[in-house]
Amino acid sequence: MHQHSRTDPYADRYADRAAGMVASEIRALFAVASRPEVVSLAGGMPNIAALPLDVIGGMLDELTRRRGAEALQYASAQGDPELRARICEVMALEGVHGSPDDVIVTVGSQQALDLLTRIFVDPGDVVLAEAPSYVGALGTFAMYQADVVHVPLDSEGLVPAALRETLERLRREGRRVKFLYTVPTFQNPAGVTLTAARRAELLDICAAHGVLVIEDNPYGLLGFDGEPMRALRADDPDHVIYLGSFSKTFAPGFRIGWALAPHAVRAKLVLAAESAILSHASFSQFAVREYLMTQPWHQQIKSFREMYRERRDAMLDALESMMPAGCTWTRPAGGFFVWLTLPEGLDAKAMAPRAIADRVAYVPGTGFYADGQGRRNMRLSYCYPEPDRIREGVRRLASVVEREIELRDTFGTGRAPERSGVDTPGPDTA
Amino acid sequence: MHQHSRTDPYADRYADRAAGMVASEIRALFAVASRPEVVSLAGGMPNIAALPLDVIGGMLDELTRRRGAEALQYASAQGDPELRARICEVMALEGVHGSPDDVIVTVGSQQALDLLTRIFVDPGDVVLAEAPSYVGALGTFAMYQADVVHVPLDSEGLVPAALRETLERLRREGRRVKFLYTVPTFQNPAGVTLTAARRAELLDICAAHGVLVIEDNPYGLLGFDGEPMRALRADDPDHVIYLGSFSKTFAPGFRIGWALAPHAVRAKLVLAAESAILSHASFSQFAVREYLMTQPWHQQIKSFREMYRERRDAMLDALESMMPAGCTWTRPAGGFFVWLTLPEGLDAKAMAPRAIADRVAYVPGTGFYADGQGRRNMRLSYCYPEPDRIREGVRRLASVVEREIELRDTFGTGRAPERSGVDTPGPDTA
Repeated sequence: MHQHSRTDPYADRYADRAAGMVASEIRALFAVASRPEVVSLAGGMPNIAALPLDVIGGMLDELTRRRGAEALQYASAQGDPELRARICEVMALEGVHGSPDDVIVTVGSQQALDLLTRIFVDPGDVVLAEAPSYVGALGTFAMYQADVVHVPLDSEGLVPAALRETLERLRREGRRVKFLYTVPTFQNPAGVTLTAARRAELLDICAAHGVLVIEDNPYGLLGFDGEPMRALRADDPDHVIYLGSFSKTFAPGFRIGWALAPHAVRAKLVLAAESAILSHASFSQFAVREYLMTQPWHQQIKSFREMYRERRDAMLDALESMMPAGCTWTRPAGGFFVWLTLPEGLDAKAMAPRAIADRVAYVPGTGFYADGQGRRNMRLSYCYPEPDRIREGVRRLASVVEREIELRDTFGTGRAPERSGVDTPGPDTA
Repeated sequence: MHQHSRTDPYADRYADRAAGMVASEIRALFAVASRPEVVSLAGGMPNIAALPLDVIGGMLDELTRRRGAEALQYASAQGDPELRARICEVMALEGVHGSPDDVIVTVGSQQALDLLTRIFVDPGDVVLAEAPSYVGALGTFAMYQADVVHVPLDSEGLVPAALRETLERLRREGRRVKFLYTVPTFQNPAGVTLTAARRAELLDICAAHGVLVIEDNPYGLLGFDGEPMRALRADDPDHVIYLGSFSKTFAPGFRIGWALAPHAVRAKLVLAAESAILSHASFSQFAVREYLMTQPWHQQIKSFREMYRERRDAMLDALESMMPAGCTWTRPAGGFFVWLTLPEGLDAKAMAPRAIADRVAYVPGTGFYADGQGRRNMRLSYCYPEPDRIREGVRRLASVVEREIELRDTFGTGRAPERSGVDTPGPDTA
C-alpha cells in the first residue's frame, strides 16, 4: 500500500489514509503550463484585476487603526457574528433564509467540505457526486476513504432518474449513503446548471431516501442572464447543507467561505473546526465584513459577471468556429468552465503533453472522476485569460486535436489502458 | 456511542470519530467567565495592545496597493516562498537551520498538528504527550482516535527515565507509537522548560526507539532571561518536526503558523493541506512577510517579553504572599502559564463554579490530560490581564481555596468520582 518506500524513510509510519497520497504526474505538467508563452485554459483562478486596490487598501488601513485590537486577535471557531449576519444577506439573493447562528465561517468552502466529510464519513461509506465532479471535493472524499459513487449529469444538470436508480441500487446492496455532493449552478467542471424542475425532483428523491444534500455554490451569483437561481437550500432547510464562498465574488486572498447547516450539524462543524485550526483568521473575517458593509459589492459582482460573460462568449465563439467536427461542449450560463468531449478514440490525458508543447493547457477529464472515466473529456476555463488569449488558446487546441484525429485515422486509437482512482491534478488555483 | 440522539436528527449518520464530539460543560462556565467583573486567569490570548496599529494599518494599505493582485489571489498550498524564507530566519534564533522548501505555512500551528495527526495516526495508534499537555493537541488526537499515553514532567520538563520506561513498556505490549508530542519550552499548561541536558537525552531515547518528535514551540522567543533555548530540532533534523507560530510573537489575527518537517513528510503535509483548505489566506501570508521585512520585529518581541515578565512577576508574587499553605505552583521562565496544584482533597474542577461566583476564572487541570488526571490542578495564565488585575484575581482565588480547605476539614473531601477521556474546555482563545 505504501508508495515511495525506497525514498521516504517515514513510509512505514503513515496512516492508512495517507498511504495513497502522492502528487499526480499532471502537476509536473502544470508547472510547465504556467510559463507565460502557454495559454492556460486549465486554472480556476478568478480574475480580480477589476478590484479597486487603492480603495481596499484604504479600507484595510482604516479597519486596522479603528478595530485592530479585535481584527488582530483570535476569532471564535464559528466565526465573527457580524460577518455571519452579512453572509445571510448574501444568501438571501438566492432565496435562502438562514440564521447567522447556523452559519460557520470556514477557510474557503474547501474547509467546509473537509469538516463535513470528517464528521459524516467513515472509511468505506458512500458519497454520491456528479459525474464529473469538482476535483477538490473528490480529493477530500478520497482523504477520508469514502467510496465515491458517481451520478451522471447532462446539459440540465444531475439526472434525477439516474439518482433514483443509484439510491435504490445502493439500498438493495445495503450500502450506507452519507450524502450527495452537488454543484447545481454553473457546475465545476461541466459548466451546466440544474434546472428548476430537476431541483424539486432532486430534493424529493433525497428526502425519500433520507439522504443529506451538500450544495456547493461558489458561482451562484456569477450568472450571465437574469436573476440568480433559487438555491436548493431555499426549499429544504432540513436536508440541505449550503456551502458558499467569497473567493469568486470578492477575492480568494482572504479565504472566506462558509457552511449553512442544520443546527445540530453546525454544532459538530464548530467542534471539528476548533480541532482543525482553532479559528480562522480574524483579519480576513473583518476585511470581508467591512467590504460587505462599506463597499458597493453588488456593483462589483455585476462587473465581474460582465467580464466573465465576455470571456465565455469569446470561448464559445472560438470553439464554434475552430474546433474540428466530432468535438462537443457545454454552453455555460455562468461560472468559469466549459466541458469539452473529444471525438471517439481520442484521449485528453495522453494529448495533454502535446498540447502544452503547442502552448495551450487544459485539465484532462479524468481528474473529475473517482473511477477512471473522463478520458475523452477536458475542462476549459475562460475565467482568467483575456478574450484574445482565449481565442488564441482555442486556435492552438483545435490544431492539436486535428493532428490527433489524423493520427487516430492513420494509426488507430493507441489509447492508454484505463486506470481507476482519483487522478487529482492539483487545486484550481494554478 | 452517539449522544444527543433525542435532539439531533442526524445523530445516526455521523462518523465514528464525531460521535464523541460534544461541547464540554466547562464551556458554558467560560461564557459566564468572560463577563467584565470576572478576572480571567483562564485564557491564553496574547496581549497585543502594544502593537502600533497605525503603522500596521499603513503597512497593509501599502501592501494592498502595491501587491494586491497577488495578496488577494489564491496562494499555493505550501505557502508563500518569501514568507517561508523569513520563517527560516526566525527559527535560526533557536539554532534551527532549515530550508524554506521544508517549511509549510499553516493556519496556526493547530493546523500543522491536525495535518500531522491526519497523515500519521490510524485509530488506536499511540501518541505520547506530556502529562499535562496542550489541550488543543489532545482535542486533535482525540478527533483522529489516537490513544494518548502520557509521560510525566517535573520542574525540568518531561522526565527522560519515564519516557524510556513508557517506550519499553509499549514495545513489550506491541503497541505502535506514532510520535511524541512535546512543548519543551515554557510549556502549556505547566510553564516548565526542558533543560538542555534532558533535551539531549530525549533525542537519544526517541532515536533509539525510532520515534518521531513533534516539537511545538509557540513561546520559544518569549523567554524572560537571556538567549532563546536551543530547539530540539536544531540537534536532530531527521527525527524532529518543528511547529512554530506568529500568534504570540506578532498577532494571532492572521493565523500564520508553520511546520518544518523532513522533506518526505513535508510533501505529504502539503497534499493533506490542499485537501483540507486548498491554501491558506494569501493576504495573511503577505501581511506577516511584510511585517518581518519592514518592521522592527526583534524590538517588538523584546517589548512583549518585558510585558509578560512583569505579569509573571505579579502572579508569582501574589501567589507567594496570598495562597494558603499546601498549594504549590511552577515558576515559568517565559511563556504565559503557571501550573498550580491544590492541597490533597481539593478538586479544581468542582471548585470552578464557586471561583467564578467569586469573580475569578482558571482552567481546571483535567482538560490537559486524556486520562482523567489533573483534579487537583489548574492552569493560571498571566498573559492577558494587567498586573493589578492579576493580583486581584489571585487574591480572590486564594480566598476561594481557603474556603474549600475549611470545607474539606469540616466535611471531608466530598470529591466527585474520577472520569476519563478528554474534557476539552475549549481553545485557548477565550
